[in-house]
Amino acid sequence: MNGAYHYNKLENFCGSLFTKAGVPEQEAKLVAESLVQADLRGVDSHGVIRMDVYLKRLEAGMVTVGGGMNAVSDGPVTLLDGANHFGAVIGSRALEIVMEGTKRNGVSVVGVKGSNHFGTCSYYLLKAVREDMILIVLSNASQTMPPTGGVRPFIGTNPFSVGVPAGKYEPFILDMATSVVARGKIIAAAQRGETIPIGWAIDKHGHATTDADAALEGSVLPVGGAKGYGISLFVDIMSGVLTGAGFGKYVNNMYENWEEAQNVGHFFIGLDIARFMPVDAFKERMDRYFDELKAVPRAPGVLEILIPGELEHRLAQERMLRGIVLPGKVEEELTKWARRYGLDLSEALMNPASTA
Amino acid sequence: MNGAYHYNKLENFCGSLFTKAGVPEQEAKLVAESLVQADLRGVDSHGVIRMDVYLKRLEAGMVTVGGGMNAVSDGPVTLLDGANHFGAVIGSRALEIVMEGTKRNGVSVVGVKGSNHFGTCSYYLLKAVREDMILIVLSNASQTMPPTGGVRPFIGTNPFSVGVPAGKYEPFILDMATSVVARGKIIAAAQRGETIPIGWAIDKHGHATTDADAALEGSVLPVGGAKGYGISLFVDIMSGVLTGAGFGKYVNNMYENWEEAQNVGHFFIGLDIARFMPVDAFKERMDRYFDELKAVPRAPGVLEILIPGELEHRLAQERMLRGIVLPGKVEEELTKWARRYGLDLSEALMNPASTA
Repeated sequence: MNGAYHYNKLENFCGSLFTKAGVPEQEAKLVAESLVQADLRGVDSHGVIRMDVYLKRLEAGMVTVGGGMNAVSDGPVTLLDGANHFGAVIGSRALEIVMEGTKRNGVSVVGVKGSNHFGTCSYYLLKAVREDMILIVLSNASQTMPPTGGVRPFIGTNPFSVGVPAGKYEPFILDMATSVVARGKIIAAAQRGETIPIGWAIDKHGHATTDADAALEGSVLPVGGAKGYGISLFVDIMSGVLTGAGFGKYVNNMYENWEEAQNVGHFFIGLDIARFMPVDAFKERMDRYFDELKAVPRAPGVLEILIPGELEHRLAQERMLRGIVLPGKVEEELTKWARRYGLDLSEALMNPASTA
Repeated sequence: MNGAYHYNKLENFCGSLFTKAGVPEQEAKLVAESLVQADLRGVDSHGVIRMDVYLKRLEAGMVTVGGGMNAVSDGPVTLLDGANHFGAVIGSRALEIVMEGTKRNGVSVVGVKGSNHFGTCSYYLLKAVREDMILIVLSNASQTMPPTGGVRPFIGTNPFSVGVPAGKYEPFILDMATSVVARGKIIAAAQRGETIPIGWAIDKHGHATTDADAALEGSVLPVGGAKGYGISLFVDIMSGVLTGAGFGKYVNNMYENWEEAQNVGHFFIGLDIARFMPVDAFKERMDRYFDELKAVPRAPGVLEILIPGELEHRLAQERMLRGIVLPGKVEEELTKWARRYGLDLSEALMNPASTA
C-alpha cells in the first residue's frame, strides 16, 4: 500500500486480529502493544513482522490463551510458570510481580518458565523505569549461535537488558542481543545479493565468511568473541537452567517446531532506587553522568555521543508523528490475515482516505 | 631469580609485607590471597604485580587499615561504605553480607562505595559458588575507554562477572573486563616493539591504530562496539551512580592520583539456588548443559569447547604444582619491599635451596 501506518491504529488492528482469533481482549492488547512498540523504536525484527507466526502458532494450538498462570513467591523470589501463554502476556505478568515485589522488598527477582517469544525486553524496561525502578531482563531463545570454537548453533542470541531512569534525560535502555548482529541483517544482505563483513558469521564448516548465503547455512557469531559467548551462556543459565524452562536445544524454534511449546525462560531483577538514595538525588547523578558523557570529544564525523536507548526513543517520537512504514511482505501477510478475520488493514494507515 | 614461586609461600610473603607495613593480619591475608589467586589463575595483571602500588598507597596514607566499615541493611538490600580500606577487604565484607542475606532472603544485593581496586571479581565468585549460590559482581574502575564515537576515556574497563556452581564440572566463572583486550596486552606489545590488531584501540585523535605506542596515548576500546560500551555504562551506573561511590571521572586512578581516595564502587547480587529448585537438580541441569556444550562440533584446529573459567581453573591447578613465574620487574619490586621490611623473597620460591 506504500503508506505509513498510525501506531495506535496499527495496534488496534493487531489487537483485533488476535481477539477475532480467540485471544481475550486484555491479552491481545498486550501482545499488539509490544509488537507495535518495537516497530516504533526501529526494532522492526521484533515488530508486527511477527504477527504472522504468532497467529499461525495460535491457530495451530501451540499457544494457550485465557488460562491461568501459576506464580509461587517466597519473599523477594518468585517462580512463574507462564503455562504457554503468549510471551508478552507472561512477560507482563512477570513485570507486575517484580514491580510489586521491588516496592515491597527493595529487590525482587522473578524466574519464568513455560513462556514463548516475548517481544523486546525494552517493552518491560520502559514500564519499570517510569516507577523509579532499575530493571534487568534476560531471556533465552532458540539456538542460533555456536560457542566459541564451535561450528553448530548451541546458544540463542539471548538478550541482556537493563533499564535505568534519569532526570532530564530519557531513561538508559540497554537492550542487546548477544550476537554481533541480528540474523535479520544477514537475511537482508542475502536478499540484496550483498556480502557481509568478516566477523558477523561463520559458514557451516566453521570458516569465517563474507558470503551471506553461506552465513545463513552457518551461524551468526556472539558479540566480542568469547565475551559475548559467556554472556549468552549466563543469560541461558539464569533464564533456562535456573527457572526450569528450556535451555540450549530445549528451547524450541517457533518457526520450525510445530509439535512442541517453545518453553522459553526469562529472568527479571528489579531494584528500588529509593532504598539506595533519594530518587531525586539519583536522577541528578544520572543527569550529571550523561552531561559529562555527552561532552566527551568526538571522533571525526561523529555528531553526538549517544546513550543506550536514545536513538530508539527518537525514532519512536518520529514514527509516532510520521507513521510506521511496513515492508511489502509484512503488508501482504497482514492483509491476508485481515481478509480471513473480516478486517481492513488500510484503516490503520495514517491517512486512509488518500490511499483508497 | 628465574625461579617459580610457591603460591602459599608467596601469599605468606605478601601478607607479611602488608603486616610489616602496618596492616592488621586478617586484612593482610585477604589482600595477599586475592592477589596470588589471580596469579594462579593466569590473570597476572591483577596479581602480585599490584603489590608495589598497593604498598605505595598504603605508605602514602591513601588507604585506611584496621578501621570499621559502615553497613546499613533494609531487608535484602545493604549499603556498605568501605571507608577506604583495601578493596579486597571491603569486597570480602560485601561478600559476607551478600552470602548471609542470600541464605536468609533468597536474593540479596549489596551496593558498595568508598572502596579501592579489589582484585579480580573471580576471587569473590569462587567463594560464593561453594555455598550453592549464584553471584553477580560488578565494579567500576578509573577512566580508560571512550564511549562509542568518543576519543577520550570516559568509562573504565568496568568488569561484569557471574559465578554459577555445577555438579561434576567446575563452576561457571565469567569474569570479563568490558574492553576488547586488557590494556596490559598493549603495554606488552609496545615493549616488544610489535603492532596490535586493528580494533583494539584508537589513537588520541580517535583513529583506529595498529601502533601500540599511539594506542597507549589513545584509548583501549569497549568490546563489541556499542554493546560493550553499554555494558560498561551499566556497570558504572550500578557500582557508582546508585551506590554513592565515584563514577566516570570521579573514580580516581590509583597510579596517578595521590591526593584523593579512589572511591571505587562495587555491586553484588546473590541468588540462593535452593529457592528455585533442589540444588542437586540444578547441578544436574548444569552438567547436562555442559555435556551438550562440549559435544558441539568444533572448528578446524579447535581441540575443545571451553566453559568460562575452565582455562583459569586448569592454570591454577598447574601453577599450584609447578609454581608461579614472576616477571623480572615484579621480582625487583618485591625484593626492594622485602629489603625495606626485613623479609626475603627467595624464601617463597618452590625450592629455595637450589637457587641460593
